[in-house]
Amino acid sequence: MALMPIFALMQFTSQIVEQAVEALSSFPGIGKRTALRLVMYLMNRPEIEVTHLADALIKLKTELHLCKRCGTVSDQEYCDICRDPRRDETLICVVEDFSDLMAIEATAQFKGTYHVLGGLISPMEGIGPSDLNIEAILQRVKEEGPKEVILALSATVEGDTTLYYVAKKLNEFDVVVSNIARGISVGGELEYVDEITLGRSLLQRTQYTIN
Amino acid sequence: MALMPIFALMQFTSQIVEQAVEALSSFPGIGKRTALRLVMYLMNRPEIEVTHLADALIKLKTELHLCKRCGTVSDQEYCDICRDPRRDETLICVVEDFSDLMAIEATAQFKGTYHVLGGLISPMEGIGPSDLNIEAILQRVKEEGPKEVILALSATVEGDTTLYYVAKKLNEFDVVVSNIARGISVGGELEYVDEITLGRSLLQRTQYTIN
Repeated sequence: MALMPIFALMQFTSQIVEQAVEALSSFPGIGKRTALRLVMYLMNRPEIEVTHLADALIKLKTELHLCKRCGTVSDQEYCDICRDPRRDETLICVVEDFSDLMAIEATAQFKGTYHVLGGLISPMEGIGPSDLNIEAILQRVKEEGPKEVILALSATVEGDTTLYYVAKKLNEFDVVVSNIARGISVGGELEYVDEITLGRSLLQRTQYTIN
Repeated sequence: MALMPIFALMQFTSQIVEQAVEALSSFPGIGKRTALRLVMYLMNRPEIEVTHLADALIKLKTELHLCKRCGTVSDQEYCDICRDPRRDETLICVVEDFSDLMAIEATAQFKGTYHVLGGLISPMEGIGPSDLNIEAILQRVKEEGPKEVILALSATVEGDTTLYYVAKKLNEFDVVVSNIARGISVGGELEYVDEITLGRSLLQRTQYTIN
């Protein structure tokens, strides 16, 4: 494998290999070179392993649901978190997608429920509020009457736009709306923090008490 | 997606997603983080595209042949190159695997046929001559009586070991055995070439004639 093909002239001796390379290289971040390496790897794996992989991918399209309440991916009508009686239903954390949900779950700091928007408002990409799961969170607040809605969105232009839009809509209800703290990262050295983050962390300083 | 999960505590709300991530992260060079990104990408693709990918992968195990003559991957009993009457059958180029074959095809400098070893001799990895497609090349030389066998193997310890072994075996037959040239790369600046390569390129210098 030390001699690597010049792919402008990629000539396959097998259509089957070519199709597999084409299909894998449609993934974001996977070029033909990497795809070919993956194909060569798969060719040497047992058939059952390859079948298992193929099945797992197909199930993503055929068996996956979106939770009817919070909108996260789920194997059932309602997700594990929404069905868990130990979760605090008076606290809803709004996130962009299920990987952000997983990130928050991984902190083990949140015991409420979630609401997945399925994206962020982005005029650049043509994504407006109606393309997102926003109406459902308003409906949920109206019906469930939670105490607080935490908006846990990325600190980007799209995140801030969505934050503003959703917060404004939620203000119509009798619910506390909060935003996750922005400041210097834990372990971050001050001199390397960008000035915008550092400026915000000064403005949004918290009182430090010794108990 | 800016908040990324800490995967030590990766908690999925869906087994289907988890299985797909597990299956994809078994690929070499693909970690769970990348696998999750690929899964999220696939979830947003049309079902037909995902099915197509899954089929392409399964076919790698169920429909792929090794050419009965040269050992490269093929959709049929004999590969396109072996079935092509325009290829020079008196010239056989021995390569490690089909991606090296593709690399040579891409140069458009070779019009003979190939022989794919399926690996290199590597005592470190426990790969001996009997694990490779070496007996078949000897048999082919005996039966087909080619003029020349070109050994086009990587310039590594494993490549050199295999080169020596195969060349020694081929010496028993009335056939010219050659090795691809090793020297400085085209476009390579002399001062950056490693000393072993530069030394070889001096010893194996070729006469330069102006016609």
